[in-house]
Amino acid sequence: MRRTVFFVSESTGITAETLGHSLLSQFDTLDFEQVYMPYINTVLRAEALTQRMQEAADRDGLRPIVFATMLNNEIRTIIKGGNCFYLELFEVFVEPLSVELGVPPSRKSGRSHAITKPSSYTKRIEAINFAMANDDGVRPDNFHRADVVLIGVSRSGKTPTCLYLAMHYGLRSANYPITEEDFERGDVPQLVWDCRHKVFALTIDPQRLQLIREERRPGSDYASVSRCHEDIRHAQLIFKRLQVPVLNTTTQSIEEIASQINKILTDNLEGRSGPLVERP
Amino acid sequence: MRRTVFFVSESTGITAETLGHSLLSQFDTLDFEQVYMPYINTVLRAEALTQRMQEAADRDGLRPIVFATMLNNEIRTIIKGGNCFYLELFEVFVEPLSVELGVPPSRKSGRSHAITKPSSYTKRIEAINFAMANDDGVRPDNFHRADVVLIGVSRSGKTPTCLYLAMHYGLRSANYPITEEDFERGDVPQLVWDCRHKVFALTIDPQRLQLIREERRPGSDYASVSRCHEDIRHAQLIFKRLQVPVLNTTTQSIEEIASQINKILTDNLEGRSGPLVERP
Repeated sequence: MRRTVFFVSESTGITAETLGHSLLSQFDTLDFEQVYMPYINTVLRAEALTQRMQEAADRDGLRPIVFATMLNNEIRTIIKGGNCFYLELFEVFVEPLSVELGVPPSRKSGRSHAITKPSSYTKRIEAINFAMANDDGVRPDNFHRADVVLIGVSRSGKTPTCLYLAMHYGLRSANYPITEEDFERGDVPQLVWDCRHKVFALTIDPQRLQLIREERRPGSDYASVSRCHEDIRHAQLIFKRLQVPVLNTTTQSIEEIASQINKILTDNLEGRSGPLVERP
Repeated sequence: MRRTVFFVSESTGITAETLGHSLLSQFDTLDFEQVYMPYINTVLRAEALTQRMQEAADRDGLRPIVFATMLNNEIRTIIKGGNCFYLELFEVFVEPLSVELGVPPSRKSGRSHAITKPSSYTKRIEAINFAMANDDGVRPDNFHRADVVLIGVSRSGKTPTCLYLAMHYGLRSANYPITEEDFERGDVPQLVWDCRHKVFALTIDPQRLQLIREERRPGSDYASVSRCHEDIRHAQLIFKRLQVPVLNTTTQSIEEIASQINKILTDNLEGRSGPLVERP
């Protein structure tokens, strides 16, 4: 039995989608058909949406769930009036917050993902460019300019994590792939040691690594079971030597890993180094 | 007058941060000191947080605002009991949703940004790798494998937008930089025409472009006012010829542009091509 869920917003819909997803994740035994409905900012679009809601209700035999962040009263009333279970995610908090802050809300929609603070937006874009230019260890001489340096074997998840750190937290992220040469020396170059305070190691289960590499270069030595096991074993020895935090990308998403890295960096800056991730 | 805001969560804190940001954007005349507090998942950490809240209250002369998504009753009670204005963003919706769905919530924390659906997670990671491998027009022969192809002059925002489309929506995104050669021909290569149905053009105000390029290559012809004006003028002519949607990165964030592109692609798939962005 599949139930339709609409994420509805007057602008990008990112907030409705994020909180909506979180809420649905509490009911993970159920099956949802998820439909994104951003830019519902006219009466016409709202009315078209109520029609789609009715279609979904007829198809599913159950009224759809609507997660919405609407600021416009007229449009909200139309959607709320449709055949749906309507949850307004935004409005319920705006009023109490307004009272606490002693200021009325601006009621402008689409402010949360717009460029409201050019300086922090520019910082994020620059961080993305930095991550692109400093991927895969191409410029270890740039590590001193980075906020964070990820190390790990090939296909352990360094690149997507770096990009997420840059995009979401505006951190200038570089990465260094640990290769054959490092395994032989049992060590990483001095340029990595020099920035050890901002180095994070990524590891991955050899079985998972093998699957990813096999997809990339089928039948190669690079993708063999023994090679994957050896690479990870060698890398672990280096991580131990460096004594940097180690995060596992097998079971954790890039969002989870990035938020842990960001938290550790912040805590370090504030002199509160907590035991969020164990050092080897 | 600066007021402290805490985004508090038992796991990544992404949901608390996203909705919290949205709510604060309604009060953009005020100045907030924003503090991220993910992984508040022990009594000890919750108690340490209440101490920080008290410090903030003493410093600001006003109790801090707390945006929280807590599933654990004991931890929530500790934080709520601190000197703060506490907004629980999650719990208020979980119960009514549970009643509507007829299923109790799992009460497991950290589900929303975890790898709960390996297939869609893998799709996102693959899309990121695709975007990395198909940046800056290096492989136009791959455009037929892309979900979306962005075109625009150098520094118009193609790369960060592609990465966001890949990371957030799992779209295989490529981009093609319009250069001198295209300007001279007044056209783009056949490989771009061939995938016109999934091509989106990015434009930017010449003044803004000039600033960005000047930072990259100070004093160069590439960064000159006349060159930026000419590049944009030529590009607009090509966009007009291609008749593809044109989005402006001067005033819109990559989140806004990506969500519009995703919406147009979805509408096209469903045969509902709306007037979200005008074709030239």
